[in-house]
Amino acid sequence: MLERYSRAAMVSLWSEETRLTLWCLLESSLAHAQAARGDIPQEAALAISKHARFDEDLLERSKALEAETQHDVVAFLRAIEERMDAEDCEYSRFLHFGATSSDILDSTLAIQLVQAASMLEQELSRLLVVIARRAREHKETLCLGRSHGMAAEPTTFGLKLLSYYAEFQRARERLRRARSEVSTISLSGTIGHYAFLHPQVESAVTEHLNRELPAVFSTTLRAASTSSMPTAWELRIEPIATQVIPRDRHAVFFSTLGVIASSLERFSLEIRHLQRSDVGEVSEAFSSKQTGSSAMPHKRNPILSENITGLARLVRMPMQAALENIALWHERDISHSSVERVIAPDTTVMLDFALARMTKIVDGLQVFPERMVKNLEATKGVLFSHGLLLRLLRNGITRKRAYKIVQRTSMQALDGGEELTEVLKRDEEANALLSAEDFATLCNHHHYTRHVDALFERVLSC
Amino acid sequence: MLERYSRAAMVSLWSEETRLTLWCLLESSLAHAQAARGDIPQEAALAISKHARFDEDLLERSKALEAETQHDVVAFLRAIEERMDAEDCEYSRFLHFGATSSDILDSTLAIQLVQAASMLEQELSRLLVVIARRAREHKETLCLGRSHGMAAEPTTFGLKLLSYYAEFQRARERLRRARSEVSTISLSGTIGHYAFLHPQVESAVTEHLNRELPAVFSTTLRAASTSSMPTAWELRIEPIATQVIPRDRHAVFFSTLGVIASSLERFSLEIRHLQRSDVGEVSEAFSSKQTGSSAMPHKRNPILSENITGLARLVRMPMQAALENIALWHERDISHSSVERVIAPDTTVMLDFALARMTKIVDGLQVFPERMVKNLEATKGVLFSHGLLLRLLRNGITRKRAYKIVQRTSMQALDGGEELTEVLKRDEEANALLSAEDFATLCNHHHYTRHVDALFERVLSC
Amino acid sequence: MLERYSRAAMVSLWSEETRLTLWCLLESSLAHAQAARGDIPQEAALAISKHARFDEDLLERSKALEAETQHDVVAFLRAIEERMDAEDCEYSRFLHFGATSSDILDSTLAIQLVQAASMLEQELSRLLVVIARRAREHKETLCLGRSHGMAAEPTTFGLKLLSYYAEFQRARERLRRARSEVSTISLSGTIGHYAFLHPQVESAVTEHLNRELPAVFSTTLRAASTSSMPTAWELRIEPIATQVIPRDRHAVFFSTLGVIASSLERFSLEIRHLQRSDVGEVSEAFSSKQTGSSAMPHKRNPILSENITGLARLVRMPMQAALENIALWHERDISHSSVERVIAPDTTVMLDFALARMTKIVDGLQVFPERMVKNLEATKGVLFSHGLLLRLLRNGITRKRAYKIVQRTSMQALDGGEELTEVLKRDEEANALLSAEDFATLCNHHHYTRHVDALFERVLSC
Amino acid sequence: MLERYSRAAMVSLWSEETRLTLWCLLESSLAHAQAARGDIPQEAALAISKHARFDEDLLERSKALEAETQHDVVAFLRAIEERMDAEDCEYSRFLHFGATSSDILDSTLAIQLVQAASMLEQELSRLLVVIARRAREHKETLCLGRSHGMAAEPTTFGLKLLSYYAEFQRARERLRRARSEVSTISLSGTIGHYAFLHPQVESAVTEHLNRELPAVFSTTLRAASTSSMPTAWELRIEPIATQVIPRDRHAVFFSTLGVIASSLERFSLEIRHLQRSDVGEVSEAFSSKQTGSSAMPHKRNPILSENITGLARLVRMPMQAALENIALWHERDISHSSVERVIAPDTTVMLDFALARMTKIVDGLQVFPERMVKNLEATKGVLFSHGLLLRLLRNGITRKRAYKIVQRTSMQALDGGEELTEVLKRDEEANALLSAEDFATLCNHHHYTRHVDALFERVLSC
Repeated sequence: MLERYSRAAMVSLWSEETRLTLWCLLESSLAHAQAARGDIPQEAALAISKHARFDEDLLERSKALEAETQHDVVAFLRAIEERMDAEDCEYSRFLHFGATSSDILDSTLAIQLVQAASMLEQELSRLLVVIARRAREHKETLCLGRSHGMAAEPTTFGLKLLSYYAEFQRARERLRRARSEVSTISLSGTIGHYAFLHPQVESAVTEHLNRELPAVFSTTLRAASTSSMPTAWELRIEPIATQVIPRDRHAVFFSTLGVIASSLERFSLEIRHLQRSDVGEVSEAFSSKQTGSSAMPHKRNPILSENITGLARLVRMPMQAALENIALWHERDISHSSVERVIAPDTTVMLDFALARMTKIVDGLQVFPERMVKNLEATKGVLFSHGLLLRLLRNGITRKRAYKIVQRTSMQALDGGEELTEVLKRDEEANALLSAEDFATLCNHHHYTRHVDALFERVLSC
Repeated sequence: MLERYSRAAMVSLWSEETRLTLWCLLESSLAHAQAARGDIPQEAALAISKHARFDEDLLERSKALEAETQHDVVAFLRAIEERMDAEDCEYSRFLHFGATSSDILDSTLAIQLVQAASMLEQELSRLLVVIARRAREHKETLCLGRSHGMAAEPTTFGLKLLSYYAEFQRARERLRRARSEVSTISLSGTIGHYAFLHPQVESAVTEHLNRELPAVFSTTLRAASTSSMPTAWELRIEPIATQVIPRDRHAVFFSTLGVIASSLERFSLEIRHLQRSDVGEVSEAFSSKQTGSSAMPHKRNPILSENITGLARLVRMPMQAALENIALWHERDISHSSVERVIAPDTTVMLDFALARMTKIVDGLQVFPERMVKNLEATKGVLFSHGLLLRLLRNGITRKRAYKIVQRTSMQALDGGEELTEVLKRDEEANALLSAEDFATLCNHHHYTRHVDALFERVLSC
Repeated sequence: MLERYSRAAMVSLWSEETRLTLWCLLESSLAHAQAARGDIPQEAALAISKHARFDEDLLERSKALEAETQHDVVAFLRAIEERMDAEDCEYSRFLHFGATSSDILDSTLAIQLVQAASMLEQELSRLLVVIARRAREHKETLCLGRSHGMAAEPTTFGLKLLSYYAEFQRARERLRRARSEVSTISLSGTIGHYAFLHPQVESAVTEHLNRELPAVFSTTLRAASTSSMPTAWELRIEPIATQVIPRDRHAVFFSTLGVIASSLERFSLEIRHLQRSDVGEVSEAFSSKQTGSSAMPHKRNPILSENITGLARLVRMPMQAALENIALWHERDISHSSVERVIAPDTTVMLDFALARMTKIVDGLQVFPERMVKNLEATKGVLFSHGLLLRLLRNGITRKRAYKIVQRTSMQALDGGEELTEVLKRDEEANALLSAEDFATLCNHHHYTRHVDALFERVLSC
Repeated sequence: MLERYSRAAMVSLWSEETRLTLWCLLESSLAHAQAARGDIPQEAALAISKHARFDEDLLERSKALEAETQHDVVAFLRAIEERMDAEDCEYSRFLHFGATSSDILDSTLAIQLVQAASMLEQELSRLLVVIARRAREHKETLCLGRSHGMAAEPTTFGLKLLSYYAEFQRARERLRRARSEVSTISLSGTIGHYAFLHPQVESAVTEHLNRELPAVFSTTLRAASTSSMPTAWELRIEPIATQVIPRDRHAVFFSTLGVIASSLERFSLEIRHLQRSDVGEVSEAFSSKQTGSSAMPHKRNPILSENITGLARLVRMPMQAALENIALWHERDISHSSVERVIAPDTTVMLDFALARMTKIVDGLQVFPERMVKNLEATKGVLFSHGLLLRLLRNGITRKRAYKIVQRTSMQALDGGEELTEVLKRDEEANALLSAEDFATLCNHHHYTRHVDALFERVLSC
């Protein structure tokens, strides 16, 4: 995780402070749920929630003990036990009673992934707002549609943007589903069969978390949130765990991030294509102090979009590792642990950064409608070839003959730099088949954009 | 796609017959929708639906023309035009009127992927039925739960199976969502802006397909279906295409197959682990004529499960390519085409095969409860260490002290081959802390399985 | 493996005929080596080499027996035994004596991979010849160099091609090393410890294969070769096998194919970029009967290059599976088998096809030097900005001041459509710093191409 | 890059100090080479080498300027220019004269990758030494060879280790080749055509670096080296760059790390398998203060090996991104940059850590020969089935008949828990076919290990 590709809130979500705060919350909540059932004394629960609170000392002591025990949860528990033993030594033994490390680790990871998803969703929403604004602004801005990199037919820049809007709407929907996939916690013990933890305890903790987490993230862990408004929490219990929450859930989560990153890549690629000097239809905004090429001062490179292209590669590469994490041995092995320690922060931090960067790019994107028109005109009208073909068909000739006429005249126009209509008029066969009205209406851009309003209605209103 | 890892129905779904049949259906449906709006003559629509019908001649002629034109859709259209020209030459020019190849190609791919998903869903359902049966059968069959490959605590073989049941339930749910992701068709023309196809035509075709496809797959294309009952079709229009249906949809589809394959891998790995001669708790069924190792006749290898492990690698490897397919240039390039021609058949065929094979393995799996008990007993009671730890805590000592006692006595039992209870009785410190009742109830397997009914209820009833 | 992306020779290499022919060769060679040591009777070796010969009957019978035994090697051996029993029943028991299936399977795979590598090397050599020819042809053809998609500095089209030449030279070198990695065979028995096969037998077979294989591929298996000249074989014995040849070798092989495919992707991307209508500097050749867009007859799309971009995705996706194949269990499991049955033919066939297609593209590539010059001129001289910057520095001002002057005047030229030299002359500060000679020599393309000969010498002579 | 999976030297190699020190070295070396040719004044070169020296101030100032310019190389150059302007303002303009940022960035990355490769090679050598020692120690330690997870034949634990030795020998060889692949530097300017840098300058700098780098890493950057002895540097010039060094080189580098990581995975998997409680043949050493399972004190989990399994996933996942980095646009785009900033440190740091951890595991691995013998005996002699089969064949019966006898008697032995020899004696058909000597020598482990010395000689002497 490089600072260069990070934003503070998401980094904070993966900090040791956040982790230990959530561990404390879980242990405390567990103790209270157990006390409510009479599994441990009420006093123990009170003592635990008194001492299981994050502060710098707890962090330091945990680290020191981890160096010794080589086990982070054990070190954390010892650090709290030490505090309790100093005051309430009688109760420290009820800390983490009947639980196993994975209960705490996996439930905490679930909370972090859910919060990350909510933050990413918010960034997606911001991006959508900006795309919608720019799309509406350029709803009628004529430009070239290109297939295979070749001039195809006229379209509008707003329509282009609309297709990204729809794609990121889907991305948001997928992210919500991915969040739901990982919204389960488990307090089911060493083999997941509740040998020493009653299922009611798990249910009670889950309800407690859903009540408390909004406040936890809006106050205690405020830094680990980009939202001003607390969002609803809908954690569920894992129906059947095997010490660990099954990793197919996480694989879906990371795959979803990979798909979203690839959608960002598509958008960044569009901007890079449109900014290339041969096209020149848009440009990333360029800050006044920013330096371009060190050697070639004339260049304004689309470096932010290029950066997003690279980040997309980084965000999607962990999918494979996340899939390999699924097939753990028997009730669990721990091979997934190192993988997740790396990819959970890395992918969410980089995707968060990339989304915010894309929002900034779109927000400030310079659009050059004159160049768009110039590029349209450079096609000499051949981009109306499909319309011409259909007119010829309507006028009664076979597709084969029509195709030949269109291909012949188009190529003449392209090669000779003459307008297609002029070539058609000189072409005996074509000229005989086309009426004056045909000629008058053939090269009409507006024919190509007449459904734009309907498409905007279709996409932006849903 | 190797015959060795294929089943006939899914192979048939990707046959040229299926493809051309669907192309015919789309062209015919398009023509009728256009005629209904008055875009083309009614007679043309009738002529088109008369001639656009699959037979071997059409296939042969299409192939011959493709060799010439290097364009499969153009070749197909020409083959039909030739037929029409022989009888109704006036109308051939209204075939495919205003459409572009992608309208046909992408809509057909959507139909095939949706059908593939339905067939895979059916296999998943079959697998679930078999797992549920075997899980109920072994609900109380005691066996070792293992974490890190090490004996952990007692569990039941039914509980093991239940966790796979829950995972494949999630797989089925994901598959349904993935099917919905790719359930859009598009008839929107060269840049997706309906320049020469009215949006109403697309809607009408979509409705027509949803009505007709159940019959098409249950009669005309019966071979390409594993279902005896036609399933409901819920194709939708693509809100905004850019000639092509956006490839993030397909990426989600193939990613989902990858996740499901990885869940199969987890299950196959479990069976391989349990069958290894050191464990011997289960065995794949072995047909009487089957040959095992060519050199070592004594071996019954878990080759079907090993095969599924390998197939899982094959099914998930295309995810990366599917993600790279998202970022097409501008309104589309065609780099995705070769990828999809390979991975769409390959992944669905291999996953279908792997699901059916897994169903067969589970159905016939030999389970050896005596060996399970023997393996439990080989642990000399140390797998009750967590229970022992908690009893010591309840009896009033600190976690640190309790942990040391348990670790010391467990290791003695494991190393010396003596039962843990015996070691505990000889251990002065431990013996002083444990009551007669503690000793009597400590090594009670049933304590570990008392929530089994509740878990079965939780998972199998939902 | 789709016929569409296949060439006959490589397909033939992976045919059942090739496989069974090589199995026969190995069994026969094994028998003779054993007879030479006295491990089996000489008559047995003669009988085995008489009957272990490929023909259609053997293939049919093997298939029938495989359906029964579910084991391809066992089925093959039985088919030969049946033949022997009909005539020389006494000796059939010495067939495959002391060997295990993997001895035959892995050694055969090695031979096929080595042959595939030789065939791919030959395609790479053909590609190199064509690139060298086109590079020399366009050694002096001026065109734009672009970084970040933006006009950077003048270069020549030949230099562009030269960089691909150098990359494919490296590709060929890597392929040779990858071939060497998989050039080991193993006849070491069930655990790789020669319990029933003497190491001398393995050595003798290896030598025999190196002698015989040139003829085998140039006569018996002629179809599975693209070479007119037999190539040298340098098979070695695997120093230590564990029944199987270790799969890190194969992972290196498939990784290498993935890297080569990615180099093809880079080249295909260059052509697609240069062909886009906004650039128009090159074009794939277009056959006279070929049809372009079905709807837009004016378009000549770079579909062959786009296809190579897609094939590159397909060729590199198996790398991951090949890596997962490395960590087999203990002395071996068989999870790699299904993977290799698919990826070994698929990747070599598709890469072979892609290389040949790329050779064809480069061979026939249309180059448009006038458009290249036009694109150079469209930059209004700002692509000389680095030279201008350095002149200003030489003339004594600081880099910061020089950078500002160049950036200011370049942007004016680009935005105003005026030549940079004209802007410089009007710019008081710049004009004062530049001499008449500076102005005269600044915009000199040849300054940028003066090392072209040296670079050609450097790359093409090695 | 997590501290948890890092070692100091490799982390230091990727520090800002190392990077800036190398940038200074390159700029200084460049200036001297230019001065030697008369391209810039000698005084300028002296001034540059005086001021281009790493210290904390330079780092701070570079960072501040980067925040402003958003360009790390420009910021670095400005920081040095400021220093020079304070003293030798006349010469600052000759800093980085004619070079482009990539000249510095790519050459520095090359140096770092080469140094990383040397450090990894050293770790591989350490691992090899330890494996060789343990292999020799257990050359004759009998244990089970297993295929498909099933007992196959006797082997020795030393032979097992020998196969890893051979694999890591190959790994070291591959690493050396990968180092050679990335051992090129480039000082060829904006498009790689030496427009403003003479090729002689690049050659001179290359020679200078090869002379100076041993001392640089053994003194100035001592922290970024695990070697006590300076290693030889063999940097070459890049034959043809396009501003950037072509990324196929880096793809080979990262692929190689992925293959090595997968070999580590194979070894870690072997240990995990052998340590599982059902097998119990080895155990990772367990430090006295280390805590095992928090809930189950009896467990000694193979957590280090499990960790390596996870790290292998992390090290190989960037291969895909590295391959996608190859196909940059035209002469270069910058999408690879973010990818490499992450994966170059991450993969080398994690692989370095994993290699050192594996060395530690092997060094301290506890081996339990008694359990190995016990596991051998548990097979009841069926692991001699191949030998039995061959004896029956030698004694004159057909393979089919022999196979049936062996399979029947082996299964009886396995199922009934009786020794194979006993079953054979009771089996009328078998008994009649086997002589007293056959019975006496059949179950002889030493037959299976008689080539062990030869194999050790073969692998360890090369």
